[in-house]
Order: sequence, then structure tokens, then C-alpha cells
Amino acid sequence: MADLAVVGSVALDSVTTPFGKVREVLGGSATYFSYAASFFTTVRLVATVGDDFPEEHLRLLKERGVDVTGLQTSRGRTFRWVGEYGFDLNEARTIDTQLNVFADFKPLLPSSLKKTPFLFLANIAPELQLDVLRQMERPQLTALDTMNFWIQGRREALLRVLAEVDVLLVNDGEARQLVKEPNLIKAAREILKLGPRTVVVKRGEYGAVMVSNGQFFFVPAYPLESVFDPTGAGDAFAGGFMGYIAAQGVVDQATVRRAIVYGSVMASFTVEDFSLNRLARLSTAEVERRYAGFQELVRVDL
Amino acid sequence: MADLAVVGSVALDSVTTPFGKVREVLGGSATYFSYAASFFTTVRLVATVGDDFPEEHLRLLKERGVDVTGLQTSRGRTFRWVGEYGFDLNEARTIDTQLNVFADFKPLLPSSLKKTPFLFLANIAPELQLDVLRQMERPQLTALDTMNFWIQGRREALLRVLAEVDVLLVNDGEARQLVKEPNLIKAAREILKLGPRTVVVKRGEYGAVMVSNGQFFFVPAYPLESVFDPTGAGDAFAGGFMGYIAAQGVVDQATVRRAIVYGSVMASFTVEDFSLNRLARLSTAEVERRYAGFQELVRVDL
Repeated sequence: MADLAVVGSVALDSVTTPFGKVREVLGGSATYFSYAASFFTTVRLVATVGDDFPEEHLRLLKERGVDVTGLQTSRGRTFRWVGEYGFDLNEARTIDTQLNVFADFKPLLPSSLKKTPFLFLANIAPELQLDVLRQMERPQLTALDTMNFWIQGRREALLRVLAEVDVLLVNDGEARQLVKEPNLIKAAREILKLGPRTVVVKRGEYGAVMVSNGQFFFVPAYPLESVFDPTGAGDAFAGGFMGYIAAQGVVDQATVRRAIVYGSVMASFTVEDFSLNRLARLSTAEVERRYAGFQELVRVDL
Repeated sequence: MADLAVVGSVALDSVTTPFGKVREVLGGSATYFSYAASFFTTVRLVATVGDDFPEEHLRLLKERGVDVTGLQTSRGRTFRWVGEYGFDLNEARTIDTQLNVFADFKPLLPSSLKKTPFLFLANIAPELQLDVLRQMERPQLTALDTMNFWIQGRREALLRVLAEVDVLLVNDGEARQLVKEPNLIKAAREILKLGPRTVVVKRGEYGAVMVSNGQFFFVPAYPLESVFDPTGAGDAFAGGFMGYIAAQGVVDQATVRRAIVYGSVMASFTVEDFSLNRLARLSTAEVERRYAGFQELVRVDL
């Protein structure tokens, strides 16, 4: 099984939250995505790192069965992100972004990878997302993440790639910003006119909502007493979501709903520690137990 | 059937939202509560109005079978509230509050009312809430609403009444403020130590969460494209919640979960128009249809 590909960033993150501080730890959208998805299926990672990238991080990914053939090592420094969260853990403040080797990244997909049926375009420049999508041979399902930075600065390119994807995953504010509509429900409907058949809006501590085929599906965030670091939660969500769908190989409404819950499960574990620390000590049994726990959170007929 | 009593305000509201403006329309916590609860059971309203209170408003309540025996008409002006909402409809800005006849309100319960098994202490001064509670003869279930104003200014009195109620209904910010804890889950657990066995946190466009007996229950807000006026949503929520429980006459976990959904149903209709306008043209069939719709919003196994 090798049915899910992701293109995105692999990074070294320095993060400060009210509960602690870490320096140059493993991060990046494609990293969180792959690691979370690896609980469900084999993932092929397309990204670039510098020659300073620690071998131990690579080992961590390989140990989970992540296929790193598409991970290019370039001369130079790995992508760095420095961020900070206040007590409102819903929004990160970016202190510094150093693109480094990512500045000149031109993904060139190995031909074996081009036939991968499920594709996730993690949060990178929309031109890069489009470039990767054009190299693929008609994937069964493509999902895309983006952020305010691209919505504001690269709107045209973003709209071009949006027109060709099946699922958009964004957060609350990004959804509203993309179509300039303050009502989230109206915003989701407007986004569906731009191309995607499905919109998944991630709402941090308020969970997630999916709009698709005139149907709405809500899942709460798992009630956690300690959220240490929200970094990567959205990417881990996408990893659980796409990983589960790829493992099932079908894209019907019931599968997609269950996938949203698995995405929420993976996000909930991610925030319990810095970097990938919680995911690195996570078992499949824990994933299944929390999935069952999610169902109890909304069940009316006991 | 006359098994639910409420003490709270009956008011004339002037409200501005981004979608319109109304002046001196029927409002007040006990009004919204009674009207919403009347879809489930008979409600006895305890409140006061001035001699300027329009007869048509009284008629509206009577037509729904609300028992207004406990509604005192005093010499003077009815309670007035003037408020405004921006595009973020989650928080009202109070422009003016005129207590008028409410300033000297001393509720005196008719003896028939003292045996009512279900009691809602709507958002008024905690001393008044305690006064009413002390007149009751051991109700089966008492729920209480409050607000930041009393949490800050009348903390001691509020803690005294809290110690004697079964259910606290508050919004997100109030829950955090009450126990000075930014994490909502921790805050809910802290509140349970103050007396109530159950905490229901209303989260506006993010729905509601109940914490009780170590269990969590989440319900989303109904996805509405047009929210005209959030005034009264929390009280209508409480009305649906308590009305359903009183109609069932039992307080087990399954009943309380369904009651939370009925509360959400009533809140969702309330915000679709100003004042009680939407509730006034609501049918029981619509209530049941939306209840079913709520279940579809979270159902995983299709």
C-alpha cells in the first residue's frame, strides 16, 4: 500500500507557548501530515530539507514507514519557523520565517509517485501546489490547505489551483477571508463555487465543520485539559483525514465523515505535546479508543 | 401540566444589529425562556412589568399557555435594555439599561407555585435568585443563568445561590471568568466543585457543551446563513432545555442530552428574526424537523 502523497514543508520550528518553549524541533506541514497519516496508510513525502537536517528526524519518519524518496536534500539550510502563542491558543504569531532551501524548491516527482491516487497539497505557495498537481496522473482525490498569506498575496494562483482540487481544508478566518464573507455557512457555500466539492473548516478548540453536497457535518474538538502546543494540529488533522480515506480507497459521505473524526483524533493528540512528541509515542489502540470517545461526545441516544 | 417556573426579566428591548434595528420590542430573559419552553410544557412566569407594558405582549404569552399569575404589574416603567451587535454577533454591547420597576422587585410566590418541580433562575441579581429559591419547596431540578456583571460585582451572593442549584447555564467567557481559568474544560470541572452537578456552556455560533458526571456532550450551532439578532438566544436555549426536561419529568443523562439539543433548536429559531418574531410563527412540526436535522449534523454512521 502506497497510496497517499503529500507535498509541503519539512521544517525546524522554534515555538513558545504559555506552557513552555522549544528550539529547532522537527516541524513543517508535510511532516505533521505524513506522520499522522502513517497510522492509516503508507505516505509518500515530497519536500526539501537542507544539509543541516538532523538524521534522527529522518529516522523518525522512516520508522513510521513514511516513504521519503521524494524528500530532496539541497545544499543550504532547512526551512525555519519561529512562532509564539498567547493564552488564546487559536492563533500563532509568526516571529520569523526563513524559507532557506524552500526558496528555490522545484518539486520533481518520481514517475512511480505520479500515479498515487490520493494527494494532499499542504500549505505552501499555490504555484508549487499547482506544479505538483500538474505532474500527477489524475488522482482520485486531491485536497489542499492554504493560509492567509497566500489568500492575500497570491490570490490568482490560489484560485487556479483551487479550481482543480476536490477538498479544501482551511481554518475559520481563512474561509471567511477567501470569499470575503463573515458568515461561515455562506462562506463555505461560496467556496464550493470556486472548485472544491467539499470544504473542511478547522476551528481550533471549537472542532471542525465539513460542507459537502448540501450536507453539513460537525465534530467538536476533543475536550483536553492541557493543550501544550497547537503547532501542526491542522496538518495532523489533514493527515488523519486523508490517511483514513486513502486506506479505505473510497470517497463516499460516510467515509468522509469518519475521516473527519480521525482527523480530529490526530489533531487532538498532536497538541498534547511539542513538535511530534505525542504522535511519536502514540499507539493505534489509543487512536481507536479516542475515535470511540469522539462518538460518545455527540451521541444523543444513549 | 404546570411543572416549570421561571423568575427573570420581562423587558422592552431596543436592538441594533448589522441587519436592522428595532425599538422597544418585547424582550427579557424570562420572556424568551417562557415562550421557548411553552412548546414543551406549561410555564409559570415570575417577573414584574410597569404599567406601560403593552397588553399585546401579555396576550402573546397567554396565547402560548404561559401562566402569568406570577407576573406583577407595578406602578412605573417596564425594564428597558438598549443593545448593539457588530458583525461578530457573539457579544452584545449594552448601550443603556434602565431597571425601572425591577429596581424594587421583591418576588412573592403564590403558594401553588412553590411546589413546581422544575425551576429556572434566569439572569437577574443573585440575591433575587436566592430569594425565589428559598421560597420553593425542594424542586426536583433547579437551573441558573447569570452574567459577567454579577460574576464581577456580586460574587459572594452568586456563589451562595450556585451552591444550591443543580445546573448552571453560562456562556464561554462567563465560565472562564467565574473560576478564573482560561481552559474551558478545566473551568467546567472547577464550576462543578461550586455546587452544580451539571454545567452547560453556551458558545454562540460554536454551539454548546455540557459537562456532567465526568461526561462531555457537545452540540453544534445549527448552520444558519442569516442570523438577524442573537438577543434572547441563551434564554430560549434554556427554555427548550428546561421545557423538555420538565415535560419528561426525569433527569437522566439521555434526557438531559436530548434537552440540550432541544435548547439548541429553540436558540437557532430565535436568532432568525428580531424579538420573539420567529418563535411567534413557529410550529411544533418545525421544532421536530430541526431536532432531526441536528442529529444529521453529527451522525457518523450514515
